[in-house]
Amino acid sequence: MSQTTMNGVINGVDVDRMGQTIQAIQQIPDLGTSQFRAVNRWISGGHNRSTIQSFYSAGQEDTTRTKPFILDADEPPVLLGQDQGANPVEHVLHALAACLTTGLVYHAAARGIRVESVESKLEGDLDLRGFLGISDTVRRGFKQIRVNFTVKSDATAEQLEELTKFSPVYDIVSNPVPVSIQIETR
Amino acid sequence: MSQTTMNGVINGVDVDRMGQTIQAIQQIPDLGTSQFRAVNRWISGGHNRSTIQSFYSAGQEDTTRTKPFILDADEPPVLLGQDQGANPVEHVLHALAACLTTGLVYHAAARGIRVESVESKLEGDLDLRGFLGISDTVRRGFKQIRVNFTVKSDATAEQLEELTKFSPVYDIVSNPVPVSIQIETR
Repeated sequence: MSQTTMNGVINGVDVDRMGQTIQAIQQIPDLGTSQFRAVNRWISGGHNRSTIQSFYSAGQEDTTRTKPFILDADEPPVLLGQDQGANPVEHVLHALAACLTTGLVYHAAARGIRVESVESKLEGDLDLRGFLGISDTVRRGFKQIRVNFTVKSDATAEQLEELTKFSPVYDIVSNPVPVSIQIETR
Repeated sequence: MSQTTMNGVINGVDVDRMGQTIQAIQQIPDLGTSQFRAVNRWISGGHNRSTIQSFYSAGQEDTTRTKPFILDADEPPVLLGQDQGANPVEHVLHALAACLTTGLVYHAAARGIRVESVESKLEGDLDLRGFLGISDTVRRGFKQIRVNFTVKSDATAEQLEELTKFSPVYDIVSNPVPVSIQIETR
């Protein structure tokens, strides 16, 4: 099967199934409603662990995952941790890199654009005075994130950049998401 | 050593060292300047992998990590992937859970508040019509994230909630972060 046709698998993405999914959600918009979840448990100091398994998508609870993904987070020694995992802001960079890449690859596939390789390097600038409560005017999160992609494909840089912008994590990081926090004490 | 004093280790956090770090950054604000990084490489379809190792903190390149953290992302079959890892938005929930927890635990330690256990459950609502480009008015990322903590500690729910708000990832998700994307084609 030719990689350049709109049929079959392009960039490892089944574009026939993608077309069917898009058509189904166009007809029944509620099928787009999804919910993703994580459960996290503190271990000690900066070390904690998330368990990720169940989610809701395409109108039902998805039960195809037979075991959870386990993700550890910690801080390096200079930030008073034991380095048992990447730290939380590094996980944000991973999530952003992964999502921009998937956005690029999936939307390229939908347009019949072949992608041969994608690599990205991300840098996020953070001033610890925010987290440590030393300054109220310094923000606590990243001030700025730079993403540098190197892509081998049929498309121009401008076309590819447009495709990355479909990324949900790009939206989450670039724009405000309402976060509600409830705490039950025991 | 008493767990309730401000000296020594509380909640697995060395509060003496934390105090020294805060004092050093108060004296030389530039020591707060940090940079975190990730390198990501696409594998196929929705599967890609990040390598996380180097970072800059406390006025220098940190070289204490002798090997990188490797993080995989993919999509489940219903989202046209092979489920080789949690998906990018699930990684955001992990990052947020981890960071809120570390914020709570570290700032509790700094105040002499003993924490016995912390568990959180996160849910993020997402409408796939955004990512798929079916609708321009539906946002691509999470519309809303709900975080439910269960905490066993000396403190009230109100005190604990205040401590979580120091979290850098809470800031990143709740507020806009400028993201610049550069693409080099080969």
